[in-house]
Amino acid sequence: MYSVAPVFLRSDKFLGSFSIVGLIGKRRDPSLNPLIASLCELLQARGCEVLVERSKASSAIDPRLLVETEEIARRADLAIVVGGDGTLLGVGRTLAAAQVPILGINQGRLGFMVDIPPEGMQDAICAVLDGDHDSEERLILSATLERNGEKDRKVRTSVNDVVIRNQATIRMIEFETWMDREFISSHRADGMIISSPTGSSAYALSGGGPLLHPALSAFSLVPICPHTLSDRPIVVCGEQRIRVIVRGSQRAQAMVTFDGQLSETLDPGDVVEVTRAPYALKLIHPPGYSYFSILRNKLRWGRGPDKPAERA
Amino acid sequence: MYSVAPVFLRSDKFLGSFSIVGLIGKRRDPSLNPLIASLCELLQARGCEVLVERSKASSAIDPRLLVETEEIARRADLAIVVGGDGTLLGVGRTLAAAQVPILGINQGRLGFMVDIPPEGMQDAICAVLDGDHDSEERLILSATLERNGEKDRKVRTSVNDVVIRNQATIRMIEFETWMDREFISSHRADGMIISSPTGSSAYALSGGGPLLHPALSAFSLVPICPHTLSDRPIVVCGEQRIRVIVRGSQRAQAMVTFDGQLSETLDPGDVVEVTRAPYALKLIHPPGYSYFSILRNKLRWGRGPDKPAERA
Amino acid sequence: MYSVAPVFLRSDKFLGSFSIVGLIGKRRDPSLNPLIASLCELLQARGCEVLVERSKASSAIDPRLLVETEEIARRADLAIVVGGDGTLLGVGRTLAAAQVPILGINQGRLGFMVDIPPEGMQDAICAVLDGDHDSEERLILSATLERNGEKDRKVRTSVNDVVIRNQATIRMIEFETWMDREFISSHRADGMIISSPTGSSAYALSGGGPLLHPALSAFSLVPICPHTLSDRPIVVCGEQRIRVIVRGSQRAQAMVTFDGQLSETLDPGDVVEVTRAPYALKLIHPPGYSYFSILRNKLRWGRGPDKPAERA
Amino acid sequence: MYSVAPVFLRSDKFLGSFSIVGLIGKRRDPSLNPLIASLCELLQARGCEVLVERSKASSAIDPRLLVETEEIARRADLAIVVGGDGTLLGVGRTLAAAQVPILGINQGRLGFMVDIPPEGMQDAICAVLDGDHDSEERLILSATLERNGEKDRKVRTSVNDVVIRNQATIRMIEFETWMDREFISSHRADGMIISSPTGSSAYALSGGGPLLHPALSAFSLVPICPHTLSDRPIVVCGEQRIRVIVRGSQRAQAMVTFDGQLSETLDPGDVVEVTRAPYALKLIHPPGYSYFSILRNKLRWGRGPDKPAERA
Repeated sequence: MYSVAPVFLRSDKFLGSFSIVGLIGKRRDPSLNPLIASLCELLQARGCEVLVERSKASSAIDPRLLVETEEIARRADLAIVVGGDGTLLGVGRTLAAAQVPILGINQGRLGFMVDIPPEGMQDAICAVLDGDHDSEERLILSATLERNGEKDRKVRTSVNDVVIRNQATIRMIEFETWMDREFISSHRADGMIISSPTGSSAYALSGGGPLLHPALSAFSLVPICPHTLSDRPIVVCGEQRIRVIVRGSQRAQAMVTFDGQLSETLDPGDVVEVTRAPYALKLIHPPGYSYFSILRNKLRWGRGPDKPAERA
Repeated sequence: MYSVAPVFLRSDKFLGSFSIVGLIGKRRDPSLNPLIASLCELLQARGCEVLVERSKASSAIDPRLLVETEEIARRADLAIVVGGDGTLLGVGRTLAAAQVPILGINQGRLGFMVDIPPEGMQDAICAVLDGDHDSEERLILSATLERNGEKDRKVRTSVNDVVIRNQATIRMIEFETWMDREFISSHRADGMIISSPTGSSAYALSGGGPLLHPALSAFSLVPICPHTLSDRPIVVCGEQRIRVIVRGSQRAQAMVTFDGQLSETLDPGDVVEVTRAPYALKLIHPPGYSYFSILRNKLRWGRGPDKPAERA
Repeated sequence: MYSVAPVFLRSDKFLGSFSIVGLIGKRRDPSLNPLIASLCELLQARGCEVLVERSKASSAIDPRLLVETEEIARRADLAIVVGGDGTLLGVGRTLAAAQVPILGINQGRLGFMVDIPPEGMQDAICAVLDGDHDSEERLILSATLERNGEKDRKVRTSVNDVVIRNQATIRMIEFETWMDREFISSHRADGMIISSPTGSSAYALSGGGPLLHPALSAFSLVPICPHTLSDRPIVVCGEQRIRVIVRGSQRAQAMVTFDGQLSETLDPGDVVEVTRAPYALKLIHPPGYSYFSILRNKLRWGRGPDKPAERA
Repeated sequence: MYSVAPVFLRSDKFLGSFSIVGLIGKRRDPSLNPLIASLCELLQARGCEVLVERSKASSAIDPRLLVETEEIARRADLAIVVGGDGTLLGVGRTLAAAQVPILGINQGRLGFMVDIPPEGMQDAICAVLDGDHDSEERLILSATLERNGEKDRKVRTSVNDVVIRNQATIRMIEFETWMDREFISSHRADGMIISSPTGSSAYALSGGGPLLHPALSAFSLVPICPHTLSDRPIVVCGEQRIRVIVRGSQRAQAMVTFDGQLSETLDPGDVVEVTRAPYALKLIHPPGYSYFSILRNKLRWGRGPDKPAERA
């Protein structure tokens, strides 16, 4: 019997006081400095201790506040990430492992995870510090590699997806998929995407995969440009162990990429094993957050309900 | 916090003795009579009480064994269904409600659920009666309708899917979808499919939906020929209450169909509400059953793993 | 050897003088009356004889100008259609048969064919009357039905598509497709779309079909929700004769629809035969018209080229 | 006005006598040697001069018959290619340029182009030498590259497709597409496929493109895993000049591949220009060839027409 743990928490009650707050901004983007400085001021005015990630140093920030991301991960009760979804992905893997909840502020263009616009930032942060917020846990992928028949010890994590891809331009290789000890299929394809619900609106969607509601404890397995037209996306329980084995004749033909940000080469016979990480990515939202509202906006689904929500 | 109950049981241990066994065959197919008669004999030789669904009456069957499906649902410890997936769907809704587990025997062409070929029937049944079998619970959809603002009391169930469809050839109508009190989207489309994992390899797959592993407690919502190209299939938790509201100006333009077998018309403003039924469809398989093996066969995914299963 | 006639004309030279101009507006939309009246004035000031389609009668229009659509088709050198793409489709079949070129003005929301916004209307019309315009010919579908083994004489035309669809909610029927005397396939599906290039951005796109450039002399055959996943859209030469034969056991189960506006029922064995009509739909555009620019806008493809057009 | 030349010839009459016949087999596959030897004997018995491509040298072949592919291209009236579709693609580009028609014999598994099974080889070849055959011309793609603003002089050809692909694992690049001087779109995608009708059943199909009937003078442009869901395959006239411009910031991030067999790297700003080659690939088929019959077989579309072909 599989045990299925609840993956989704939503609560309006106080999660605990956010007394130490980390600030992390998109790298190599000095245009964010004024916004970081004003966030810093706001948080200090609210009595928070503020830690600013070192790359966001500027003349407006007291240099004593500057720390490494790791210190934010270790000490903060809350991390505020300013930038795009990519910025949040980049630090999300580290912060999730340290169980630090994240609030995402975008730069003027709504993201799937950075859902607070700069102009609504002050109200949102005040509400959150007052304990008036929603909280949500997103499943994270944990991956290990087996090379030459031996597992290495390093655990890689992904918020969105683990992508295994053929890098040879000429020769097609195959990807074998397994769910625990059960063989799924052998895919002649450009690659395989293993996506979390969070990643289902990212690359997996471009590959033809479904949207997975973030409360679902599930992975999608999406073959990229499969040779066989009936080789369709499959959604499996998040409690399963998924393995992808690279089959082919030449070395270093394949590549595994985590969240589109970190890559390693793979040889024939190498195995990528993906499970649900033992911890989740905690996202904090101001009250009234709706996942579908963000989808409608990002995917341009058009207009709202015919009748007000109360009707339905 | 959502509570997520386990949906999938697999066990090699004895589930309880199958002393009363019902036999149900595809209707209007007298070619099955000899097979039904030989099943009857086999079960009686094993000491089972046998109930034969009345439509399978033939000269080879003792008329005293003939009963209605309802009596099988009420009394049997096990139902053996002979035919195609459609035959199993047709009685599955009734048998599931009565918690009678089902063993499916096909007529020579493998089905997704009728997985035992006639030639392997005797061995499979003996193994099952000896307690050597796998058992699996499949999520069932439960639907209620709200018409003119009033819920009617009838509960419809579906093993595969609930399909709401525009029947007007000319005028497009819209389908509003809700997950509990949260608005999902307004779909300009030919219709909406709400599919169980079991139904994900049926009509929902033709509509572009993903395959859902049957152990997953989830529904997929698949828009049929949506006007907006980003209106893609969504998978949500099986613990959610899904509602589809028909929007349009003319009466009786829409139709809701359960498992492609039962239909009712819908008017603008009518609501179809779908939840997970409080009971599951119990399927009994002989040892060695593999869902993916059936998928590979039915979807013609081609060949097996490169190396034997033990390798991976 | 197939002879392939050119389908696309583009020219900046004077096509002939437009001295008699018909005005046709969206039906049942009195909000268009002022716009129709101002068009009328503009055209008369330019010395044109104006014919106004009768449904657009209003106090601002001299009643002696009111005529039936048929009279516009018979007498006009140019028809100006005001409304959405649906309005243009509705009269396009008639005007194309009479070889009257059409200029489309939208009501504020760009259409695929009604590409002139009301605010640009005056300039566009003056340019066109001055002979400064592009002209384009769009392939039109011509369909005949064969019932009970006999062809009826009526020729139906479609600008966008001919759709044959299963109307039975329960029983699936099959659609056999032929290209001239060559069997294509037997489709277990909800229906078949035969689309012109013009229709390829309409219903056929929702069904998974490709976009066809309007200069292409081709049809696409798009199965709707096909049972077989490899049953994919096919594009064939516009010089071919396509036939769809309905296969099934019950009467009046299928329906054929022309441009989503006119429908007829079909019985098993009935045949829908589609060829390219002997005449085309002539569209007039102000200078600078770009099909892809309209696609980018309507399909929200996002931003323009990285470098100005001259660069590339 | 575009001039559209006929692309498809089918004729039962004598094309000219095939007195010099070249034999080309799959490389590195000595198992074909006996078949090549028996073909050689058959052709000589029929009075043909035979040229055997050098890689197929074996003890059973008179060494004086061995020549390079180029000599076959220069001298043969007909080339017989034995192997899979890949073998035919590999020599097809050279033979097409030399206007040598090709007959394809498979190794026991039907190909899209190698349509004669070994067991039917003798009858097929005799019929063809007797002048009883069909002949078909397939559009070939001709590509030139522009690097650093300068066109190089080399013309590459493809029978199936020209694929431009992002090779960077991390950073997404963009592909701008143009049809002559008209901007189509800017694609954020893994790559772009430009496919001939022949290639439409190959990689382009895996990427979601439509099937194009080989008689169609058209290209399909298929974005690979596009970021924007409405970025769908487009079919354009084969008389057009298609250009794809690579946009990005880093060198050598992109790759262009011809028929999946030859590759070159691309830098940002580089342009791949594709037109229809001035010559076609001529395929010879024994009488009774049907493109759709091969599609039905290869794509496993299932059964034939309900009634015999004469009926329809």
